[in-house]
Amino acid sequence: MITYKYGKGKKGSASIMSGVMFQENCVINYYECDTTGHLSAPMLLNILLNVSGSQCTELGVGEDFTHQLGVAWVVIQYEIHFDRIPQVNEEITIQTTPLSYNKYFSYRNFEGFDLAGNRLFTVASSFVLMDLHARKMVPIKEEIVAPFGILKENKMVRMTKPEKLTELVTEKKFQVRYLDIDANQHVNNSKYLDWALDVLDFDFLNSHDMIYCNVKYDKEVEYGQIVESKVSSVVNEEGTIKTIHQIKNGEHTACELTIEWKQK
Amino acid sequence: MITYKYGKGKKGSASIMSGVMFQENCVINYYECDTTGHLSAPMLLNILLNVSGSQCTELGVGEDFTHQLGVAWVVIQYEIHFDRIPQVNEEITIQTTPLSYNKYFSYRNFEGFDLAGNRLFTVASSFVLMDLHARKMVPIKEEIVAPFGILKENKMVRMTKPEKLTELVTEKKFQVRYLDIDANQHVNNSKYLDWALDVLDFDFLNSHDMIYCNVKYDKEVEYGQIVESKVSSVVNEEGTIKTIHQIKNGEHTACELTIEWKQK
Repeated sequence: MITYKYGKGKKGSASIMSGVMFQENCVINYYECDTTGHLSAPMLLNILLNVSGSQCTELGVGEDFTHQLGVAWVVIQYEIHFDRIPQVNEEITIQTTPLSYNKYFSYRNFEGFDLAGNRLFTVASSFVLMDLHARKMVPIKEEIVAPFGILKENKMVRMTKPEKLTELVTEKKFQVRYLDIDANQHVNNSKYLDWALDVLDFDFLNSHDMIYCNVKYDKEVEYGQIVESKVSSVVNEEGTIKTIHQIKNGEHTACELTIEWKQK
Repeated sequence: MITYKYGKGKKGSASIMSGVMFQENCVINYYECDTTGHLSAPMLLNILLNVSGSQCTELGVGEDFTHQLGVAWVVIQYEIHFDRIPQVNEEITIQTTPLSYNKYFSYRNFEGFDLAGNRLFTVASSFVLMDLHARKMVPIKEEIVAPFGILKENKMVRMTKPEKLTELVTEKKFQVRYLDIDANQHVNNSKYLDWALDVLDFDFLNSHDMIYCNVKYDKEVEYGQIVESKVSSVVNEEGTIKTIHQIKNGEHTACELTIEWKQK
């Protein structure tokens, strides 16, 4: 058991007892990188889920186990702080630690390190259990989380919410494609980030590094639907740039994101 | 040195001396799969290039070496025969063997196997060297291919060409996105396959397995451009279905594909 400070620097942060830590190494492949040869943020999300999935499998509560119970883990929020974005062919270590759970939510942290031990990123995340047939959130079953060695707490962990889009600068439409739908039968979490990034200017993306990304999923989008990806941007006092994103599916907000950037 | 039969069952096939074989294992990640939990064809292309890239690096002629010479390998054709499509979490072995080269083209085979040794797929491919500044094909430099242990042959290997689209059934437009451009500064080869597949019907894709795919790249597409992905389909005598694809960029044909499918 490790004592872990959750929600670094946020309101309501506290030292809490966390569960069994797990780590895995991976090499960053060229097809997981953007045009500058650095790991793309959508691919980071995919890699993180692979690592937590490996831990679940190792503890005997992997996808086979949850699917037998008619449920699957669904991420509803990620909050990422980047120290450095890893690059093509680099080997990195990802550690993940389950933190706690309550009736509906389970919390987990991730940290990435380079082989010299320097921290690359920290990620706070929250998951819910979805009933695979009803496609609805259901209470977390104790037998699924017991091997994580985490405590049930009645209090919810308050993660910072992405900011609300108030002023619209740019928007672009995207139709959900066949390969956006993954083996969990819904749009892969990483695709919302694709849609958010693609509204930003090519030269901006090439000349800036993501230093913070807060992404919150609100409502599933279905195959063939057309989403609108909207963005506004603000220059912060310290010279960094903040982009505020909203992915809309008709009247519904499907996803909201706040991203902070610094010049390369 | 291995004697290898290139271009299985095609006109002009012959036993030729091939070069140094290389193999690598990989696990199929969930985000590399389609909604049925099987490896998607675009991701297979990415994985293949990773394996040949690893061989180049191991032989001292990796990307660092080619970039110093101002060039990069570019795939211009793949011809894939599937015996079985690997599935999520499956560990597979990929073998690759460089075959021969001539003034402009270099040929390489890939084979995939499951851990029981059953063959999953065979892939014939051809590569050219691109000058990174002029973005033009240049003659193959001997120092880049020497470690492969392959022979220079004046005769070109004739790979089967994808069929020409004659009748149009369906088409869809796609705009090149930021993350379609990879660290090689052009649209990643796998994305053309995304565009080809996404024109087919969701239910068709879910109920059919790809058994053959021939993809030939003709002309680079640039960021922001809008491509038209067109398809027609034919039912073969043996009950399989053939789809004939064309990706157009304005007046230019960017890519052509022939795919064969069987019912799952």
